[in-house]
Amino acid sequence: MTQRVVPAARKTYLQGSRPDVRVPMREVPLTNGDVVVLYDTSGPYTDPEQRTDVRRGLPALREPWIAERGDTAPYEGRAVRPEDDGRKAAPVREDVLPRRPRRATGGAVTQRAYAARGEITPEMEFAALREGVRPEFVRDELAAGRAVLPANVNHPEAEPMVIGRNFLVKVNANIGNSAVASSIEDEVEKMTWATRWGADTVMDLSTGRDIHTTREWILRNSPVPVGTVPLYQAVEKVGGDPAELTWEVFRDTVVEQAEQGVDYMTVHAGVLLRYVPLTARRKTGIVSRGGSIMAAWCLAHHEENFLYTRFRELCEIFAAYDVTWSLGDGLRPGSIADANDEAQFAELRTQGELTRIAAEYGNQVMNEGPGHVPMHKIKENVDRQQEWCDGAPFYTLGPLTTDIAPGYDHITSAIGAAMIGWHGTAMLCYVTPKEHLGLPDREDVKAGVIAYKIAAHAADLAKGHPGAQAWDDALSDARFDFRWEDQFNLSLDPDTARAFHDATLPAAPAKTAHFCSMCGPHFCSMKITRDVWRYADERGLDGEAALEAGMREKAAEFRAAGGRVQLPLSPGPS
Amino acid sequence: MTQRVVPAARKTYLQGSRPDVRVPMREVPLTNGDVVVLYDTSGPYTDPEQRTDVRRGLPALREPWIAERGDTAPYEGRAVRPEDDGRKAAPVREDVLPRRPRRATGGAVTQRAYAARGEITPEMEFAALREGVRPEFVRDELAAGRAVLPANVNHPEAEPMVIGRNFLVKVNANIGNSAVASSIEDEVEKMTWATRWGADTVMDLSTGRDIHTTREWILRNSPVPVGTVPLYQAVEKVGGDPAELTWEVFRDTVVEQAEQGVDYMTVHAGVLLRYVPLTARRKTGIVSRGGSIMAAWCLAHHEENFLYTRFRELCEIFAAYDVTWSLGDGLRPGSIADANDEAQFAELRTQGELTRIAAEYGNQVMNEGPGHVPMHKIKENVDRQQEWCDGAPFYTLGPLTTDIAPGYDHITSAIGAAMIGWHGTAMLCYVTPKEHLGLPDREDVKAGVIAYKIAAHAADLAKGHPGAQAWDDALSDARFDFRWEDQFNLSLDPDTARAFHDATLPAAPAKTAHFCSMCGPHFCSMKITRDVWRYADERGLDGEAALEAGMREKAAEFRAAGGRVQLPLSPGPS
Repeated sequence: MTQRVVPAARKTYLQGSRPDVRVPMREVPLTNGDVVVLYDTSGPYTDPEQRTDVRRGLPALREPWIAERGDTAPYEGRAVRPEDDGRKAAPVREDVLPRRPRRATGGAVTQRAYAARGEITPEMEFAALREGVRPEFVRDELAAGRAVLPANVNHPEAEPMVIGRNFLVKVNANIGNSAVASSIEDEVEKMTWATRWGADTVMDLSTGRDIHTTREWILRNSPVPVGTVPLYQAVEKVGGDPAELTWEVFRDTVVEQAEQGVDYMTVHAGVLLRYVPLTARRKTGIVSRGGSIMAAWCLAHHEENFLYTRFRELCEIFAAYDVTWSLGDGLRPGSIADANDEAQFAELRTQGELTRIAAEYGNQVMNEGPGHVPMHKIKENVDRQQEWCDGAPFYTLGPLTTDIAPGYDHITSAIGAAMIGWHGTAMLCYVTPKEHLGLPDREDVKAGVIAYKIAAHAADLAKGHPGAQAWDDALSDARFDFRWEDQFNLSLDPDTARAFHDATLPAAPAKTAHFCSMCGPHFCSMKITRDVWRYADERGLDGEAALEAGMREKAAEFRAAGGRVQLPLSPGPS
Repeated sequence: MTQRVVPAARKTYLQGSRPDVRVPMREVPLTNGDVVVLYDTSGPYTDPEQRTDVRRGLPALREPWIAERGDTAPYEGRAVRPEDDGRKAAPVREDVLPRRPRRATGGAVTQRAYAARGEITPEMEFAALREGVRPEFVRDELAAGRAVLPANVNHPEAEPMVIGRNFLVKVNANIGNSAVASSIEDEVEKMTWATRWGADTVMDLSTGRDIHTTREWILRNSPVPVGTVPLYQAVEKVGGDPAELTWEVFRDTVVEQAEQGVDYMTVHAGVLLRYVPLTARRKTGIVSRGGSIMAAWCLAHHEENFLYTRFRELCEIFAAYDVTWSLGDGLRPGSIADANDEAQFAELRTQGELTRIAAEYGNQVMNEGPGHVPMHKIKENVDRQQEWCDGAPFYTLGPLTTDIAPGYDHITSAIGAAMIGWHGTAMLCYVTPKEHLGLPDREDVKAGVIAYKIAAHAADLAKGHPGAQAWDDALSDARFDFRWEDQFNLSLDPDTARAFHDATLPAAPAKTAHFCSMCGPHFCSMKITRDVWRYADERGLDGEAALEAGMREKAAEFRAAGGRVQLPLSPGPS
């Protein structure tokens, strides 16, 4: 298990209004005595005071909050069946903790419903502390449907967080088993690894065998909200044939996953029968798995998508567990040529219709978005989604800004993700270097998360999120002060920054030296600047005129001292 | 030496109006019989018909064009001195080919001057064929100063190319020796490696020993234009002390490099004395090496920057060899906090003034730009540069869109590079993963070039460059048709794409299989789409109504055939 403490960082907690609202943050102590406090998604695994055990799960921090609201009750729950794990007759694995699920005893138990009543829940306060905003602001954004706080009553282990365009841009990492590549333990490890690097949520896209049990382990051990695509499991249950899907099997799967604690579910309810022919004009047709499953179902039955016709029934289930909608974009473009076309926008309009229906049930709603989109067509995606879906949080996959770089789609899509985040997307679903080519391994997951943390933070800066620039400023100050260790520890990936520095200047003294390998030991542009500043400071000079006067003196002094600066030994930027 | 032929690609040549105008292109034959022809920067090294020898240099393809214009003549040239290589008394290396440089015998011999006279040179025709535009268009853009064609009369080996906002966005890769890390052969290899992956120009930022000889080898072997920062060598010549710099030493260095064939030179002539105090308010002061050298000189002498006061003399030299200006941005921001500040824009205004002066001499001019800029401040950089500098080509370093990811600045800056390219930047100077941390090695050079080719192509798409999308379309068609080998061969990095695919599905049959590792062998969203299309096509159906009617039939047929589609075995996008 990933339990390694981030180098030099300490776990710290922001105390809320009640003793059990304690918000974990990452505190980076700097060598100059300052402390930088950063948002932290890594959960108890990076707290040396806490012991974690994958077979016992994380502490259920939200349990008392949920219980004391008195609007849910534990019940027997759906019996777990061998076919939930894709098996004919398998024993339930002994290492899964027995739990009784909860559900609403009356009306909606969603954070949105509470917010609409004016209540500030401990979850809202927790998320507000993480973001550095007032709890009332979180409440108001939830009530307006401009934000979601995914928090299934059966996933009390998760640390509450909020997703909306007026908050920090979030990042999702997809994980999921495969018969060939992964074990259950591997998937749990992939989840803790992704959150270690900053993933705000994970989606478990497991298919095949042990799908129920894998999800159970991930949920019990995940400090972040977990999303799924229930359609994948539903199709497994009918032997893998989309045509055999029924509303009953799908409903059963949604209840099964809601009882386990899935916080948000992707549902492709906007893929309407009449939209499918629109994809025939496309270069790459339908590229969403969920979208193509429902298209295949419509093709086989020539009936309207049952996810659309039964939508209100799903809203009732979602309200009873506080499952958040992630309305799928089954007709998203799979190539630059197909971006922003009729099929895509037809589905988006239907997402808007469904968003309004879900709101009637107090449901929390996000809308999923593309995909492959060239830069000049990105903004239109957000503008339409925000208009047509009443400002609900947008949750996009990339988008990839070109098709020509398989193997580097974390980069082609980080470009689009940063831009779409700036324009108002609330959460970015990562893309790994293996996209289009194969299954991501551990290094791919890290590469994807880091690329997307860059995109999200670049978006926060461009949006002018209060406090976002403080991080850049702290790092740039450290850089300018030659505080190398601080520069490493403040970076998104301290390990890599340190390793790259060591590759050129491995010796320990280089970590404190007032130079770097780019300009060599005797000359540094930043050092010259500091000479100017120190000079001004020593004389209490301020303002341009005074500084220029100071420089005149300084010039004389510089020459008098025979002050020599030695030039670079090695190349760098000009 | 990198002489490896790109996998599956063939060298092909576009024939111009005269036999010796033969423009190399990369031809990718596809398994469906199509052929895709791509821009190629890799030079003779990837042509199996040509033999290259680093000790003899590349063929001087422009030699006859230059000679027959009759406006230049060979002359004795400046004697190479040991101090040019930073040595007290070193023998000239035997392996450097003896050459006599050329210079103008009368007026300006620049491509701009020819264009202004209405002439279309072979160089212009060559560049036009590469870009797929009419030669007249290249001529008119050069004449207007909106584009440059860097082509020193002493670098006849380079394949002509054009840089301007109405052409494909170009990428520069920095190379350069260091006493510790590199040999001369290593630097030549780094140049061929960078151009192999798509670098349109290289800058030799060598410092220290053997600086003259290293540059000579790079020039004689470079198929792309070569840029330098002459200030670096000039400072070496005065023992590394910026205060000891003189106009005479700088001028001598410019002539030395112009005689060798440097195609464009970065000159920090816009760092005026009165701007230096403006940097005192900054978080990271002056971060440009050239900028800080000139600031140090101003500081030591309290005199105006001699590059500014002697600018017209430099214009005369540049006109005599056709050296293109790359007006340096010595006061570019080195952190998010300093972006778009007074110091930066003050220098940019002066760049505009200098651009107009250079135009008087028929000089070709580019303007360098930042640096570190958050997304919302990027467009302003291009808008001001285009306005203040009369539409001259903008040449930017990134910009990095956040400071928090040392080790990943090829990504933080590819985001900014793509955006600034879209808004009108003509050439992007790459940033490698080692930026801020150490010296780039071979893998870093490749990572930087690929990230920037992505940014440049994404910009071409967003600008609607004619033909740019054909590449994406060809790759997306291959993807949709499961032509795996074509998908690899069309990608920016075929080796990596193939290796990633093999990591999950190594067997040879998987290269032709109609599925990929994401959705497994029995189900594929793209396959379902193809079923719909094929059905429509077989019946000659067209239009939505017909298609929908067709689908009704298809549904019956699908059920009748017991048509079964098997679901994914492994996770992928939802």
